[in-house]
Amino acid sequence: MVRIGVCLSGAGVFDGAEIHEAVLSLRALALGGAQAVCFAPDKRQMHVINHSSGEVEEGETRNVLMESARIARGEVVAADTIKVEELDALLFPGGFGAAKNLCDFATAGADCEVDPVIANIIRAAHATKMPMGFMCIAPTICAAVFRGTDTRVELTIGNDADTAAAIEAMGAKHVICPVNEIHIDEGNNVLSTPAYMLAKNIAEAAEGIDRLVSKLLERCPASLTPAG
Amino acid sequence: MVRIGVCLSGAGVFDGAEIHEAVLSLRALALGGAQAVCFAPDKRQMHVINHSSGEVEEGETRNVLMESARIARGEVVAADTIKVEELDALLFPGGFGAAKNLCDFATAGADCEVDPVIANIIRAAHATKMPMGFMCIAPTICAAVFRGTDTRVELTIGNDADTAAAIEAMGAKHVICPVNEIHIDEGNNVLSTPAYMLAKNIAEAAEGIDRLVSKLLERCPASLTPAG
Repeated sequence: MVRIGVCLSGAGVFDGAEIHEAVLSLRALALGGAQAVCFAPDKRQMHVINHSSGEVEEGETRNVLMESARIARGEVVAADTIKVEELDALLFPGGFGAAKNLCDFATAGADCEVDPVIANIIRAAHATKMPMGFMCIAPTICAAVFRGTDTRVELTIGNDADTAAAIEAMGAKHVICPVNEIHIDEGNNVLSTPAYMLAKNIAEAAEGIDRLVSKLLERCPASLTPAG
Repeated sequence: MVRIGVCLSGAGVFDGAEIHEAVLSLRALALGGAQAVCFAPDKRQMHVINHSSGEVEEGETRNVLMESARIARGEVVAADTIKVEELDALLFPGGFGAAKNLCDFATAGADCEVDPVIANIIRAAHATKMPMGFMCIAPTICAAVFRGTDTRVELTIGNDADTAAAIEAMGAKHVICPVNEIHIDEGNNVLSTPAYMLAKNIAEAAEGIDRLVSKLLERCPASLTPAG
């Protein structure tokens, strides 16, 4: 059974991992015969958003790992304990948590910095040519990791002009892609799909995510049971 | 398009709605052509559990409606604003939130009381013979609502002997059911499936939930696009 690292960033679209994208990923991995290894940074979230009003909850703090555990039913490990060599692929659901807690793209744009633990995991995975999948806003993390290097990653976040421009400003190539499709960077073994950057409902998000996970599993050398 | 009320109870298996069950429900409803109308009580959760350690977070409080909004991407309404006559069916995902916030089965067992707003919604739905679906531990809510009445509902929570005995003690009939199946009480138009009361992984939970939602939508008189 292949082991896929799933990087979470809290639990809730506005300050954490996008819950639908994360659960759809876990579903697709399980149906594809893969084992999900959920991980998240053990640190404070950038902030807490009241998801009913959209307002920042002043004075409230939450921990990324603890909130991610809600999505993982307790089965989540701290990112700094992850051994990339024990995984067959990496998967990054989106949500503002990807752009607030895994990096600071939400506030710094193309100047964003990636959490150093997460950046190291991505660099180590890339060095092995392990497949990596990024959805929604998470491709910005990948672009930021390789900013200033010789690695020019091809990514999609759908068609949002400002985000695409920021990705290009970081030295990556942005490719426009519809919500039900994925883009594959063959050279870097990086897959991406727009998910809720474009999806108008969960069925639309699911179509691209199912396709991404299926292709990700096909690319795992150890895969005995690729997703149908 | 049929409108299905989805009753949430927070966001996280140990103190709120079981996130996988809720998202799998929303996915199945969308793929079945139905509109989900998420609702939750606007009140304080019984308590907050650190989902990483399993411990109660002393001194922390969260609101059921605000946390449910994380699953619903902001699109959730207070239960006391729900008009049952504008819905075609009701759906109750599980998680400890169902047994801690929608009723107090987790602490009171067969003596539990149901949140009065939720109880009224279920009674009103039952009076119209609208289909209702309960998953995981949520069937205990249904049993408690009809305790002491002439309505004897048939329900399943899988095969847990203590929970089944409590359901019978409340005057309902418990039926043993495997994780990939559902039980249908034809007379009361009540559907139930064990989900994470039995599921060992998300794929197992999904099988029963997909089946329950499919049958629920078939039973909506207004349904033009039953789930495949």
